[in-house]
This record gives sequence, C-alpha cells and structure tokens, in this order.
Amino acid sequence: MLVNGGMQLSKHHGAGNDFLVVTDPEGRVDVGADLARALCDRRFGVGADGVLHLLPGRDGAAVAMELFNADGSRAEMSGNGIRCLAQAAVDAGMVTPPSFTVATDAGPRDVEYRAGAQDGTARVSVDMGVPALGPDQPQHFADRRARTVDMGNPHLVLLGPDPAAVDVVEVGQGIQTAFPAGVNVEFVAVTAGTDEITLRVYERGVGETLACGTGSCAAAAAAHAWGLVGTRVTVVNPGGPLEVTLDGHVRLEGPTWRVADLSVDPAVVLAAARPVVRR
Amino acid sequence: MLVNGGMQLSKHHGAGNDFLVVTDPEGRVDVGADLARALCDRRFGVGADGVLHLLPGRDGAAVAMELFNADGSRAEMSGNGIRCLAQAAVDAGMVTPPSFTVATDAGPRDVEYRAGAQDGTARVSVDMGVPALGPDQPQHFADRRARTVDMGNPHLVLLGPDPAAVDVVEVGQGIQTAFPAGVNVEFVAVTAGTDEITLRVYERGVGETLACGTGSCAAAAAAHAWGLVGTRVTVVNPGGPLEVTLDGHVRLEGPTWRVADLSVDPAVVLAAARPVVRR
Repeated sequence: MLVNGGMQLSKHHGAGNDFLVVTDPEGRVDVGADLARALCDRRFGVGADGVLHLLPGRDGAAVAMELFNADGSRAEMSGNGIRCLAQAAVDAGMVTPPSFTVATDAGPRDVEYRAGAQDGTARVSVDMGVPALGPDQPQHFADRRARTVDMGNPHLVLLGPDPAAVDVVEVGQGIQTAFPAGVNVEFVAVTAGTDEITLRVYERGVGETLACGTGSCAAAAAAHAWGLVGTRVTVVNPGGPLEVTLDGHVRLEGPTWRVADLSVDPAVVLAAARPVVRR
Repeated sequence: MLVNGGMQLSKHHGAGNDFLVVTDPEGRVDVGADLARALCDRRFGVGADGVLHLLPGRDGAAVAMELFNADGSRAEMSGNGIRCLAQAAVDAGMVTPPSFTVATDAGPRDVEYRAGAQDGTARVSVDMGVPALGPDQPQHFADRRARTVDMGNPHLVLLGPDPAAVDVVEVGQGIQTAFPAGVNVEFVAVTAGTDEITLRVYERGVGETLACGTGSCAAAAAAHAWGLVGTRVTVVNPGGPLEVTLDGHVRLEGPTWRVADLSVDPAVVLAAARPVVRR
C-alpha cells in the first residue's frame, strides 16, 4: 500500500547487530524518540537494535549519522551501526566509495567500503579512534585477568578460559555495581597459536548482544596489550566474526547485509505501538 | 534498492502476535521452510512469529493461507495469523469485504472484516470452529481448577488468582510431561463481576507469547463452562485485548495493524541468515 509513499527505510545487519536506516538526503525527516522506539519494537513495530538517521554531511563529512537506541534514547556512536549506515549511504548515492567520512555525535569517522560479490552485501571498515587502555589487573573479577578500555564508551575486558560457560547477564550485571557510570563487559578467550579471540559481550543497559563493535575493538586492544595476539585480530562474536586492526588507531571491519527495503507510515507505526500492559 | 523489484511482503500484528504476509495472487511464489525461517529471524532477517503465504482461493474460498512458523515448520491454523492475512487480502483486492472465506490446512474459515477509522488498521473476526471441552478438574495442577479444550490444537486452561505471579515458562514446560503430544497452557483469572478474563499463555514449542488466538478461545470457552462469564468475553492478552463470542462455534475478534510494506531479495535474505554459532 505504501511502497511508493510513506517513510522509506532499509534493514541492515552486521554480525547480527541490526539497524533500520532512514535515508534522508535532504535532511527533511524528523525521526524522534517515539518513532524510533515504535519502529524498533520487534513485535508491534518492525524490529531492530536501533534506528540510524542518514543525513546530509557537515564539517567536511560526506554524510552524517544520528543514532537512536531501541528504547528511543540517543547514542553517540556504534561500530556496527556506522558500517550499516555506510552501506545505505553508498546504495543511495550519497557518498563515493571506497573512502568517505561520516559525521557522528562522537566526531568524524573515516569509512572504507568495498562492494560484496553478492548483491546486498558489502565489507565495510571504520576507524574507531584510539583506545585508552587501563592498567593490567592480573586477578580481577572471579580470578580473571582484566583491563579497562575506553573506546569513547567504557569497557572491562575479562580474560578467561571459556566465554561459553559464563552467565553473561548475571556476571555482567554484577560488575556494574563497581562502575557508577556502568560498563560494557567483554568475556574473552584466545584461540591458542592464532590471532583469533572469541567474545561474548554484556552491553550496559541492554544485556547480552550478538555482536558489539566497540567491544570487539576493546577486546582486541586488551589481548594485544597482554601480548596474546598480533595487530590483525579476528574477533568471533556470537553473531559472526569481525576483524580488528591495531595501529595506534583501531579499525573495525566486517560484512554488512541489506536485508529488506521498507515503507512505513509513521502515524500508523505510532498508533500500532505496544500498549501499556494490563495484567 | 528493491522497492519495485524483489518479493513483496507486508508486516502485520494482532495484539503483538506478528506476521509477514507474502501476497501472491497468482500463486507463483515458492516460500519454503528455509526462506520463512530466515525472514522470521529477528536479527539476521526481518523478524516475525510466522510467515503467511496468501494464495488464490480453492474449494469455494476466496483466498487460501499457507502458514510457516518462525522455525520454518508448517502449522495448520493461527487465529491471529488468519486475521492478519485477511487484512492483507482486502488491501490487495483479492477479497470483497465484509465477509469472505479463507481456505486453511485446518479447513475453510469464515472471516468478517471492518476497516478501522485510521489507515493501517482493521477489526477482523474469524470463526474458530467448535471447542471440544474436557471434564472439569476441580483440583488439577498446583490446586488450580483446570479443563482441557481442543480447538484443533490442544489446550489446558488453568484458573487461578493471579497470572502475573506465575512463572509461565517453568510451569508450562513442567505440564508438558503429562501430555505426550504437548499442550498449550493458559493461565487465567476472571475479573469479578465482568465478562473479562486476563490471560497468559505458554505456547507449546514456543514459550510465552504476547497473544494467542486459539488460547483466548479455549480460555473463554472454559470460563463460560465454569459459569464465570457470559457468551461475549474480553480476553486480555499481554499484547492487548481480544474479543471472543461463544454460540456453539467460537468467534475471535480484534484489531489488526499493517505496520510496514517490505521488499526483499530471497537470495539475499538466505545469504544474510544466521551463521552456525562458533564458541
């Protein structure tokens, strides 16, 4: 009914971290917290981890990103989110690949884009900035070696034998009490003799997620600082592998998929939203 | 990119029970288990409780419904699913409202459709057939009054003071052991002095859901048989209220919403699907 009317969106994912992109080359769309929350609702709306508003560039950047979490709140930056947004920007002809800059609320970010062999997929990498590593903590939580890493957002990387055996939510929530502003917690194992690490993440305010871009960068930086991996690290998230390159800056790379194109009427999405639960 | 190409779908929900409808007036589309599962994946695909394939009618029915669960398996019938499919059939001009018949794998079902005041919504009711009530069991599981109801699929309705206080998944799973073919379990409370009941449902093989059409019918039929409600019953599901009318047959009625129109490339959806988890 609305295919050629309404608000146009596309649904993307990077390693299972999924986003709805509102492509808005003329900067005319008002997304807003209520619409973002209604769109992200996986049963009453469309469903996604967040909404990315793709806007005209500013300050020399080709395009700009405005990011809403699933609860409608704003966030400055998302590693997988900006990779998905870059795919939509190329698809819409708003940028010229392979290299362009995206303005974010955390500052400009340099992106490299390479089309995939198959329609609908691309490999996208993004400069995630300089990690700020805390001191080594040999016997931190539950006897795990630990290290804080600031990637613009706070992380605690815990090194242990088997992330699969951890109750990520319970331990992750427990650790929050030691961090008044909250912290993202990475449970990490290194595959012996390789530059591959396996990761599970507790995201502050979210719970366990299938993939975390900043968490993958923090984990690779910590593992490198411990001398366990080199400078090109494969980080196996539950939703798939991401590649992290360390050269002062941290670069995050991986596949993105454009899964669907959508058309919605914002008034209908808001009216169809989840009611207050009566029990 | 695909708005005017690819496979066209629409996303609907009835009380938070959400479906992707593939409108296929010429019966040319092959949906299949793999594509249904990939589409229903809420992170790697689009996300829904099921896929409804809307086909040309047969045996005197105006249209036909083919239903895939989120895991790709087939199901005969869904009360909320057929209500969503009816909305898509009216939108596509495949049927003439207000009254038409939908062929399902459980037999033909009569539907009544009324457009809503707002674009994107409708009130749809469906004849869910004749409930087969088991005997009253005054002190069944955990001292609750209970009754089995066959709505084409098996239900156990448990009457208790406060569904909100029940661990629906734990109790629902525990009850399965007594039913070799499995059973849907309804935890029900009646609002004193009204024809309103509050419901939480454990769906066999799924877990707790926000709304269940056959479960709402089973719960209303059991509560009526116990003399607790009349013949027009409001069933408050966690995802919103549904209306059940009892006159030998059971009729299920409620709002449906068409939330989004989508275009997908099936090959991309399959390629973007969830990888085998490596941990």
